[in-house]
Amino acid sequence: MISEQAARTQELVSRQQIADVIHTYCLHVDRNEPEQVAALFTADCVVDYGPGLGGEIAGAAGLAAALTPGLARFAATHHQVSNVMIALESTDRATAVTYVTAWHRFPGEAPDAVLYGQYHDVFVRHHGRWKIAQRKLLAAGQTGFNVEWLPIGRKR
Amino acid sequence: MISEQAARTQELVSRQQIADVIHTYCLHVDRNEPEQVAALFTADCVVDYGPGLGGEIAGAAGLAAALTPGLARFAATHHQVSNVMIALESTDRATAVTYVTAWHRFPGEAPDAVLYGQYHDVFVRHHGRWKIAQRKLLAAGQTGFNVEWLPIGRKR
Amino acid sequence: MISEQAARTQELVSRQQIADVIHTYCLHVDRNEPEQVAALFTADCVVDYGPGLGGEIAGAAGLAAALTPGLARFAATHHQVSNVMIALESTDRATAVTYVTAWHRFPGEAPDAVLYGQYHDVFVRHHGRWKIAQRKLLAAGQTGFNVEWLPIGRKR
Repeated sequence: MISEQAARTQELVSRQQIADVIHTYCLHVDRNEPEQVAALFTADCVVDYGPGLGGEIAGAAGLAAALTPGLARFAATHHQVSNVMIALESTDRATAVTYVTAWHRFPGEAPDAVLYGQYHDVFVRHHGRWKIAQRKLLAAGQTGFNVEWLPIGRKR
Repeated sequence: MISEQAARTQELVSRQQIADVIHTYCLHVDRNEPEQVAALFTADCVVDYGPGLGGEIAGAAGLAAALTPGLARFAATHHQVSNVMIALESTDRATAVTYVTAWHRFPGEAPDAVLYGQYHDVFVRHHGRWKIAQRKLLAAGQTGFNVEWLPIGRKR
Repeated sequence: MISEQAARTQELVSRQQIADVIHTYCLHVDRNEPEQVAALFTADCVVDYGPGLGGEIAGAAGLAAALTPGLARFAATHHQVSNVMIALESTDRATAVTYVTAWHRFPGEAPDAVLYGQYHDVFVRHHGRWKIAQRKLLAAGQTGFNVEWLPIGRKR
């Protein structure tokens, strides 16, 4: 049995490691590196960017395949995340909600598009490394996109 | 007396818990849940969103009453916070400055409004739970709003 | 020799202190306080905001001299940072990549400018205090600026 002190430190380290995965995702997305993005997910992950982007994507391989054309359609992107809220369910499983403001530039003359969203994630730890097992993207709002998003469920 | 090691860990945990309150505030604001927002504040809190929004609001109950129409006037909002700077004054009291980019969509045709602001907060811990005792919103700038804000005090 | 437990806590504290320097930079920039900004850097720092802003700046004194007119040309700014990714190389040296969305208002009628960028930093610790030894600003994109930036290196 580890001490309470060691357990609290381990929790803080897990939070930092999970946040780093969330940040590394953005870095690879914005560099248009679909394989490196997919490597942050479990092999059997489930990812849903919303109905406008095709709904549920199954598996890291499927994610890489979807992101390859998905990222290439932009000339530039910038995914700034914060408000990272992590709930540790065990030493090897966590849920997280993260805010994202995602700026997108298209090739040509189309105006820039911005998504004001939330990632709702499940993380698991395999062999000491945190990976994303589930990711769902919800939208608070957007400008410049002409696709359907999952709503955040704002009260009326 | 606790060890220095335990005290440092406790400080890190307090920082994480305070940041989580700041993030949870945004989540409930953006879901239009005024009662859940107010529950993050002390009963005798003082909140000031600036002269354009009525100046000082007294108490969590007063805050819930002010936020009910205040949030309902928007069709959607997204409060992305970061730059969280926490100064722990004791084990049960802290100050914090947090940056916010707050995107607002109005019903109808009015253009979106964005506030580039800073929350200047005082936190206290009661019964093991951090709450906001004071919050003041300062504005670095804005687009689309037609109300007066408290300035951040930029040097001329 | 310190215990592994103490070493892990020290790492977490270093991460928090480095993030605080990154945040304090923004606070002083947005308050137009060039001397306080420069005090966050080592005396022999190297800073590069890109070719459009003059390329490499040498030393904290040179940085203060460059920032004095550089910040004064704006009526207001707001530098919101997040995605802070810190790699600790030793107890006294670290690298960090940080995302920034930097909003700028000009005096007069020019439209606001926004930079979607990344700070690529080297931090060192002197006398127990973390300072920025190197900072390079890369741009994912921008609106409203008419200057050349260093690119983030997005794959084609």
